[in-house]
Amino acid sequence: MPGATPTDILPDLSLADAVTIEDVRAAASRLEGVSKRTPVLTSRALSEIIGAEVFLKCENLQRVGAFKFRGAYNALSLLDDKARRAGVLAFSSGNHAQGVACAAAALGVAATIVMPSNAPLVKRRATESYLARAPEGSTLVEYDPQTEVREEIGARLAHERGLTIIPPYDHPGVIAGQATAALELHEEIPGLDSLWAPCGGGGLLSGSAIVTRGLRPECRVIGVEPEAGDDATMSFRTGRLHEVSNPGTIADGARTPRLGRYTFPMVRRNVDEMMSVSDAELARWVMFCLERLRIVVEPTGVLGLAGLGRRASAGGVGSRVGVILTGGNLDLAMIPRVEALAAGRQT
Amino acid sequence: MPGATPTDILPDLSLADAVTIEDVRAAASRLEGVSKRTPVLTSRALSEIIGAEVFLKCENLQRVGAFKFRGAYNALSLLDDKARRAGVLAFSSGNHAQGVACAAAALGVAATIVMPSNAPLVKRRATESYLARAPEGSTLVEYDPQTEVREEIGARLAHERGLTIIPPYDHPGVIAGQATAALELHEEIPGLDSLWAPCGGGGLLSGSAIVTRGLRPECRVIGVEPEAGDDATMSFRTGRLHEVSNPGTIADGARTPRLGRYTFPMVRRNVDEMMSVSDAELARWVMFCLERLRIVVEPTGVLGLAGLGRRASAGGVGSRVGVILTGGNLDLAMIPRVEALAAGRQT
Repeated sequence: MPGATPTDILPDLSLADAVTIEDVRAAASRLEGVSKRTPVLTSRALSEIIGAEVFLKCENLQRVGAFKFRGAYNALSLLDDKARRAGVLAFSSGNHAQGVACAAAALGVAATIVMPSNAPLVKRRATESYLARAPEGSTLVEYDPQTEVREEIGARLAHERGLTIIPPYDHPGVIAGQATAALELHEEIPGLDSLWAPCGGGGLLSGSAIVTRGLRPECRVIGVEPEAGDDATMSFRTGRLHEVSNPGTIADGARTPRLGRYTFPMVRRNVDEMMSVSDAELARWVMFCLERLRIVVEPTGVLGLAGLGRRASAGGVGSRVGVILTGGNLDLAMIPRVEALAAGRQT
Repeated sequence: MPGATPTDILPDLSLADAVTIEDVRAAASRLEGVSKRTPVLTSRALSEIIGAEVFLKCENLQRVGAFKFRGAYNALSLLDDKARRAGVLAFSSGNHAQGVACAAAALGVAATIVMPSNAPLVKRRATESYLARAPEGSTLVEYDPQTEVREEIGARLAHERGLTIIPPYDHPGVIAGQATAALELHEEIPGLDSLWAPCGGGGLLSGSAIVTRGLRPECRVIGVEPEAGDDATMSFRTGRLHEVSNPGTIADGARTPRLGRYTFPMVRRNVDEMMSVSDAELARWVMFCLERLRIVVEPTGVLGLAGLGRRASAGGVGSRVGVILTGGNLDLAMIPRVEALAAGRQT
């Protein structure tokens, strides 16, 4: 495992306040009746394993199957009329693509989605179905990830067509929208002692930490990422941005190379702790969700739960614990592989 | 497909009032804080397919993964002290076994569960884990379904040990407990035009119909069973009890041979319509739940949804539609088979 490598970049702490709890509340108003108020599930079996009352905020049951819809919709809502008329662009093979396409359809904004030719068919089809409801001009642009760089294609198309790029996490409107998941959790379950969230680019984690600092300062916020991509953990600990290159992990939603210009200072200031977990741990919690909780959660989606599971044996997680399950777009054909990984039959 | 064969048995309508809405309310009080108030999920994709607002009462997310817990717990709560001290017995390879074992552990009643030697390992293990928390004397008794009849083993053991048999459906306390699922749905979602529920032995369906008649008489109640075991549909239509023998269907929770002494008159009096669906339809809805709703529902659990799906194309289901998803104990190893069946690659 190569691990994360350091850069010379320090967090720009002047950006740590670019999102406030008032921004999150405003996002929640925009999302009212549009995003789902996802259920908070509990399980006696889980609470016994953890040794605390565990509350699972089920964003896998959100529209498009992930919290990403919240951020995309909020960011699109904040565009001015001219930008809305011109349309938006996103590059993603995953849940962000679906989130932007679905939000674009809901708001009547044309969307261009740049997607690798090897994206999972199920995600491509879902994205296409949302684009079909978005205004004329909405389109899916395929590229070959072996020979082309999506950022370049995206930037060129956006420039040529006057489109606004909606980034997957490093954007105040996206962060504020994503944070509404944590806002709903704190509103529904007061008195949490700790809150566990996945960390890819750090959008959800940053936003969740801002909400928690505002509503329940004594609640610890812990970000969890895959071991193979522990850049955020290293960045958090050292105060110097670390990067990884295309980390090999089943948590495909957390293969981001680094924290962003906004999310690095936000995570550094507001998060209490960062940790990483193995793919085998992720696989075991995906299976636990399927078999015991009867819900479909993708590997990235159980990062927070896996972090909690690892830490619980050492104690000190508190007596009321919140976890954000972030996405449910699991390729069902992967289940045998996940099961084998969980059972230690494969690495 | 052999289909159901008629008997000479007519419904004893004096038993149709053996469960009242007051009994269901009393059961709800007993279950308060014990069973889960399961979430009611919605999906825009589903509502568009059906052409109505669809509300899914997710009993697959109930304790033990099925509504059966509600009935078992209520029935055990109604036992007198002597019967509680002596213990209970249930025979089942499925969710009822888990429901009784879990309720017995919760109430401190010893339970004997009679289970076939070919029961799915996951259900056996779950049952054992509940029995391990029940009082001393709780035990799992295995029998060979090729050579032994579970009713005989159960009756003998119950007689020898003074145990009270807790039947899976044909029991007023079980029916009233199961009906609390429908009570919660009507309370949370007022104004339903139709309610769709699976029918195996008819316990949940009977209870749901009684609740609906009491709270929302204009709401139609439709029971759905697998085509291979259409005994209840035939019994309902002809007024004469029909039976099937071990029907071949993937809906293993609805392989019951006939309606019961209580459930036949209750279904006949209070249900508006009965229908049956094919295994391929069940398979398609199991896949829809996994892929689009991100929840795990077993084939029996989607019977109501499959009935609604078939009927919706003809219209007339109303604008606000309730569906009870009854169980989530899907053997994940079955997913490829379910997928093939859904795609018509297998019959």
